[in-house]
Amino acid sequence: MPKINRYQDISEIDREAKKDFIDRHSAFVHCEGTAKAGEAFAVTVKVGEEYQHPDDMDHYISSVALYNKDTKLAEATFFAGSQGGQDKKGNTTVTFNVVLDKDAEFVAHAFCTKHGLWESDPVSVTVAA
Amino acid sequence: MPKINRYQDISEIDREAKKDFIDRHSAFVHCEGTAKAGEAFAVTVKVGEEYQHPDDMDHYISSVALYNKDTKLAEATFFAGSQGGQDKKGNTTVTFNVVLDKDAEFVAHAFCTKHGLWESDPVSVTVAA
Amino acid sequence: MPKINRYQDISEIDREAKKDFIDRHSAFVHCEGTAKAGEAFAVTVKVGEEYQHPDDMDHYISSVALYNKDTKLAEATFFAGSQGGQDKKGNTTVTFNVVLDKDAEFVAHAFCTKHGLWESDPVSVTVAA
Amino acid sequence: MPKINRYQDISEIDREAKKDFIDRHSAFVHCEGTAKAGEAFAVTVKVGEEYQHPDDMDHYISSVALYNKDTKLAEATFFAGSQGGQDKKGNTTVTFNVVLDKDAEFVAHAFCTKHGLWESDPVSVTVAA
Repeated sequence: MPKINRYQDISEIDREAKKDFIDRHSAFVHCEGTAKAGEAFAVTVKVGEEYQHPDDMDHYISSVALYNKDTKLAEATFFAGSQGGQDKKGNTTVTFNVVLDKDAEFVAHAFCTKHGLWESDPVSVTVAA
Repeated sequence: MPKINRYQDISEIDREAKKDFIDRHSAFVHCEGTAKAGEAFAVTVKVGEEYQHPDDMDHYISSVALYNKDTKLAEATFFAGSQGGQDKKGNTTVTFNVVLDKDAEFVAHAFCTKHGLWESDPVSVTVAA
Repeated sequence: MPKINRYQDISEIDREAKKDFIDRHSAFVHCEGTAKAGEAFAVTVKVGEEYQHPDDMDHYISSVALYNKDTKLAEATFFAGSQGGQDKKGNTTVTFNVVLDKDAEFVAHAFCTKHGLWESDPVSVTVAA
Repeated sequence: MPKINRYQDISEIDREAKKDFIDRHSAFVHCEGTAKAGEAFAVTVKVGEEYQHPDDMDHYISSVALYNKDTKLAEATFFAGSQGGQDKKGNTTVTFNVVLDKDAEFVAHAFCTKHGLWESDPVSVTVAA
């Protein structure tokens, strides 16, 4: 508590409404599978994949954090209006450049001001010298 | 106060040391000059252009904020180590996707834990319907 | 740019509306004038003194930062609703405990989601061994 | 993942080292048990109770967040040095004033840059009109 919601295989869930709800809150980590040690490596976190989330004043995605295992690397705070504002929808997206020196496992957290914390699936990256 | 440092035309400054110092602290806004109304638009803020900044525990770039005129759109907090860590250097870089509905003027702030706030030059974007 | 608004002696300003406007956006630093080196020292930042600021979804105080000269010590992010929510007003207030080892000069920044950055008057603290 | 550590009854844990470790990372919520609806109500989050945490550049408490059930009310970011700096220890402490209109259940999160997220025990507050 606070509850951390996790993405589940939405194909298993029959109600379309719920599929939409889960998808648009879930954080997805997008990056290459391998990185070069000591070089800038782009990690994109996008909230939602097939669906978009409202950007209303009282209901928007206010932060996206990126962890490497238990270590927080970076966190982006967004303000209502960044995705078009009232009655608009969007996929809050941020790309952090990080530098790795060994294999990493990324997890992202998104926070919805109405529906709390959502955690991405982990994404593994192999780092080559 | 706190002092806000602003990038100056470094070609005017003769001391190479200062050129390096100013460049590696300055935030630079990179984006297209025109955006389509209501669509995701990528705005990249990169700290430093020709020079890199240390990522030491007691001296690193800890945040990058993006403003549209006086309105803060988003702010990314970085932790020491995200750019390689002690004795390494990097260009802290973050890309925020935002959605615009009218012309914008972006300004970025970077904060160095040792040398304070640095403000980018403003970058204008024309928004077409 | 972004513009940083500073508190002015509001007794000089004749229009009551403006006095209200300036007061409710201004950050005020409250603390003892002397601190003991190495011990916890409470620094309170309160936004507004005689007037309160709305806590509406599209218009609220979203952050309060505390600087010692050019060094950021701490920043608190508030979400709409923390001061009662829509159609309510309040004085966003946060107390940070810090530890000093030499004389300090505090300045606070408050950010209003509609009216931008506001800077407090500086407050000096003498630190005794 | 990231793992969220929770405070446990440390009297059950025999190794003193572990008691110290758990105590100094745990967030504790301190506030009155009852609040008056619509009025400022102080909620203090203190990291550690009997033990203090280092404030080293590579090992410090970097944030303290306050939730009311699943809703994040506020989050304070601290920078290394705010508790005395290298080789010093402290109890990172922040007091947020919030306004409640119904019963609340507070939970705090603290983040240690070396040992990750720590969650407080929940604290219930009854709100009277």
